[in-house]
Amino acid sequence: MNYKVPLKDIKFVANEVLGMSEHYAKFTKGQAVDPETLDAIYEEAAKFCENELEPLNKIGDEEGCTFKDGEVTTPTGFKEAYKSFVDNGWPSLCGPAEFGGQDMPESVGLVMMEMMIASNHSWSMYPGLSSGAIKTVHTHAPQHLKERFMPPMVAGNWTGTMCLTEPHCGSDLGLLKTFAVPDAEATEDGSYKLTGSKIFISSGEHDMADNIVHIVLARLPDAPAGIKGISLFLVPKFLVNEDGSLGERNTVSCGSIEEKMGIHGNSTCVMNFDEAKGYLISEPHKGMRAMFTFINESRLGVAMHGQAHSEVSFQKALTYARDRLQFRAHPRVDESKPADPIICHPDVRRMLLTQKAFAEGGRMLNMACGQLVDVTLSPDFSDEEREEAETMLAVLTPIAKGFLSETSLETTNYGIQVLGGHGFIKEWGMEQEVRDARISQLYEGTTGIQGLDLLGRKILQSRGKVLKPLMARVQAFIKENKRNKFAKELKSYVSSWESLTRSVGFSAMSNTDEVNAAAVDYLMFAGYVTVAYFWAEAAVAAEKAIKDGASEPEFYKTKIATADFYYQRIMPRILAHEAAIKNGVDTMMAIDEEHFAFL
Amino acid sequence: MNYKVPLKDIKFVANEVLGMSEHYAKFTKGQAVDPETLDAIYEEAAKFCENELEPLNKIGDEEGCTFKDGEVTTPTGFKEAYKSFVDNGWPSLCGPAEFGGQDMPESVGLVMMEMMIASNHSWSMYPGLSSGAIKTVHTHAPQHLKERFMPPMVAGNWTGTMCLTEPHCGSDLGLLKTFAVPDAEATEDGSYKLTGSKIFISSGEHDMADNIVHIVLARLPDAPAGIKGISLFLVPKFLVNEDGSLGERNTVSCGSIEEKMGIHGNSTCVMNFDEAKGYLISEPHKGMRAMFTFINESRLGVAMHGQAHSEVSFQKALTYARDRLQFRAHPRVDESKPADPIICHPDVRRMLLTQKAFAEGGRMLNMACGQLVDVTLSPDFSDEEREEAETMLAVLTPIAKGFLSETSLETTNYGIQVLGGHGFIKEWGMEQEVRDARISQLYEGTTGIQGLDLLGRKILQSRGKVLKPLMARVQAFIKENKRNKFAKELKSYVSSWESLTRSVGFSAMSNTDEVNAAAVDYLMFAGYVTVAYFWAEAAVAAEKAIKDGASEPEFYKTKIATADFYYQRIMPRILAHEAAIKNGVDTMMAIDEEHFAFL
Repeated sequence: MNYKVPLKDIKFVANEVLGMSEHYAKFTKGQAVDPETLDAIYEEAAKFCENELEPLNKIGDEEGCTFKDGEVTTPTGFKEAYKSFVDNGWPSLCGPAEFGGQDMPESVGLVMMEMMIASNHSWSMYPGLSSGAIKTVHTHAPQHLKERFMPPMVAGNWTGTMCLTEPHCGSDLGLLKTFAVPDAEATEDGSYKLTGSKIFISSGEHDMADNIVHIVLARLPDAPAGIKGISLFLVPKFLVNEDGSLGERNTVSCGSIEEKMGIHGNSTCVMNFDEAKGYLISEPHKGMRAMFTFINESRLGVAMHGQAHSEVSFQKALTYARDRLQFRAHPRVDESKPADPIICHPDVRRMLLTQKAFAEGGRMLNMACGQLVDVTLSPDFSDEEREEAETMLAVLTPIAKGFLSETSLETTNYGIQVLGGHGFIKEWGMEQEVRDARISQLYEGTTGIQGLDLLGRKILQSRGKVLKPLMARVQAFIKENKRNKFAKELKSYVSSWESLTRSVGFSAMSNTDEVNAAAVDYLMFAGYVTVAYFWAEAAVAAEKAIKDGASEPEFYKTKIATADFYYQRIMPRILAHEAAIKNGVDTMMAIDEEHFAFL
Repeated sequence: MNYKVPLKDIKFVANEVLGMSEHYAKFTKGQAVDPETLDAIYEEAAKFCENELEPLNKIGDEEGCTFKDGEVTTPTGFKEAYKSFVDNGWPSLCGPAEFGGQDMPESVGLVMMEMMIASNHSWSMYPGLSSGAIKTVHTHAPQHLKERFMPPMVAGNWTGTMCLTEPHCGSDLGLLKTFAVPDAEATEDGSYKLTGSKIFISSGEHDMADNIVHIVLARLPDAPAGIKGISLFLVPKFLVNEDGSLGERNTVSCGSIEEKMGIHGNSTCVMNFDEAKGYLISEPHKGMRAMFTFINESRLGVAMHGQAHSEVSFQKALTYARDRLQFRAHPRVDESKPADPIICHPDVRRMLLTQKAFAEGGRMLNMACGQLVDVTLSPDFSDEEREEAETMLAVLTPIAKGFLSETSLETTNYGIQVLGGHGFIKEWGMEQEVRDARISQLYEGTTGIQGLDLLGRKILQSRGKVLKPLMARVQAFIKENKRNKFAKELKSYVSSWESLTRSVGFSAMSNTDEVNAAAVDYLMFAGYVTVAYFWAEAAVAAEKAIKDGASEPEFYKTKIATADFYYQRIMPRILAHEAAIKNGVDTMMAIDEEHFAFL
């Protein structure tokens, strides 16, 4: 049971749902990508993922990373696959041309990212973190640092990390203690000495690249307390001479790696900074704002982690469901056999279709985010267009991250369930999907944090203004497709969403705890409706293709049928989330902390 | 973070919710248990579990079982704990006196079973399987076999297994191929030679007991095809001489053990029968019916697996949530600290209370099942009473098994989520709860199978008659507590349940696939309402205790508050299940098997 890159679906979403050719025609970077090149890139990327990454997925899980004397050895084959990745120029795909990149639109790289994650989540996190680090350095670092660090990072010879979490602070970064003092002996380069301990640093140490560039949050000596006193630094594993050659080992080191539930092939490191040399990037005390360049990119990455696991688990469960014979269907599929394939049974179909609906629905959401990222990053769009895209992305990012990671918990568990007892056995690989996907609900902010970001920090704080671009897009679609049955249903979902938002906003006025209490249910509600919007788009695109006499009508009919399933069997869930939110926070706060258990 | 046996809650459920003293007064075995003895048993059992089993839980996960040359070595300490278990007479607690047992009511043993599972799921499955094997032999085997096999099984010197699954058949046992032929050379004992391969045999081979008694499904030479041609056999690992001493090694052997997602400390064996000597128990071709003695007991056991994991995960997450400081609550808990315990935040409380509501709600359901088991097994009750109890149990067994295992997926994942990134790290033990609990949705029939058993085989096939005793009990409660707010809500839930049943029954008349399509949603719906009934019972009992001036009023107030949370924040989920079911099977069947994916 091997994962195959769903190229046909990727192309459908790009060309028929999101109109990517029209989109690419609108900006310089996009104009450089002709459809043939794009197809070729995707096909080559798919080959790399299927042939080089996927075979290492199980090995990575079984072997894990090993730690000895401060060094991390990645599982068999990881290093070689990374070399091939670099040799073939993949890391620089979307890198800026001025530093050796190929200047492709971000959306192209994100499509490849889905393939890499699906093939091998653990492996994909080494280049995955680099990508965010590159963007952060490129956006915020002074020119002299960019010139020294960007070229090897863009080429993939060096990788990157993000260092946020400390033992006593995860979600609440305002508590962080790592500090930086100006290095009196290094007046010429204005560097700092960083001291502190960071945990949960993915790809913090490994054997795949010549150097590792850590992007680190720390406090300056005169920093205000809390979240407004945090600055951002670049701390390399090896110091870098002015000519770009590697110098001495810096005093940042890996103290240990974690034993985890999943993603065993990715090193999760404790990183100790012992007066390590670092460079300030962005303004003092404004580090969090700069770090959000990295965090937002990473959140979109995690949305893809969730969605990719849904896809893989679906594909493998489907293979099994077609092969495994148990019980007889009515009508029988094959009278000569003692039983029929379990895919005939409605309950098995319910699980497979739920997986499919989230995998393909999530793909549309993620690729739409990629399209918006293109807009936000290109000066060819007007300020207004970019601002609109940024606002839409501000809403869609926590939805995609929170919703697609949560639904991956369901889909990957269905992957086990379709296989029955075999799903629990390691050999089949289904349980690895569950374990690997499980991190997606945690890192880059838990689902609770995503919910608070969406509902509290963004929607309510803007008095709903931040929702406008997304709502306008959905309303325009509804208006254009008045007679479409999905558009009609969608209209009622959207109006429930709007009234739910008003209702939470109203309760929050008398009790701010209502926001925290509603956050996750609200996020899930928003996720179901957002994905319903994309399924309606898919159905309309499919109807058009059928009407236009497309060559493979069954593909399109299946799209409409899947939309149907999503609307009929999945969407009822919003009733539960809505009612739970409306029942308010009071029952959650009624019990004193000390009375939660009497043991 | 150690699990503690929730003795106070167990006693509350026994004495104040289920009226166990009145119950025990009604039958001979029960009359032998005075309340003081019972308290002493529970307290000693709790000590054994907390002190001897719980410390081995993590070791079992880390070491797993090892297999070499047909022999299985259990993790460090397992064997010694089992010896202590036997030496202290625990295995025989509920065993029949005629074979050396202590003749306690089943309900007593089931309470201890919850403690053992919560402390160490993997370990608990060695005696857990024995218990079902004992009951099966006791109920169905001829006297001479009972005399030979029961005493050491009851004493715990020998353990038992159930051998059902084969590589090509799991849910659909009608396909099984293992066959038994009369042993021509052994005319004196009427034994058979069994040949075939069984997989997923829990505790199939291990180093903890002198002998292992396999209860095996196989076909006789003249067997009709399918499920009606299966007979039940007893196959010992070592042959047993007439005087009870051990004879030669039988030709049943362990071929390998599985590498699994969880329950690493329990051996999951491939068992090969190579003309192994076995004895027919129960009538030829009526093996499935007899095996249901074992299966039903095991399903109640699995219901406890789910519930126990909810309890443990809740307890551990609670400890962390009280200690971990992140963000500030309003009002602040302690101004002198940089942040407040996360248990102050509503979203964390939402997760903890969901865990608590399922752990304690599930306990009521499981202990109620134990009470019903007592009734079905005691000749002191009238035929009518026993039949009523059996009917209620027939409904509650799939509900408890399916619902409490499914909710354990949610609760144990909340256990991870409350800890954030730390939840994903092995050291904290939260992810082990998820991995160990995951098997509960699979073994003894998947959730889909439980749903079909409940809705199809039982409710619809009896035209709803099987629901009557449970409904009568719930309606009587509602009538008695007319003014109670929970009883009022419960009334509307029950009426939705009844109308949903009629609605599915009606659709099934035109399309039998509707049953399969509705099965899991229906089971979950039934589970939420059933547990709502028990929470209403708990609230009424708590109100009474408060009115009567109970000494620890906060315990009772918390019960009412938890019921409130369950009704306000959990019960809205039935809306989603109901609407999904009513939307029918059509969207599930619209896609041809070959069009599920285009890869």
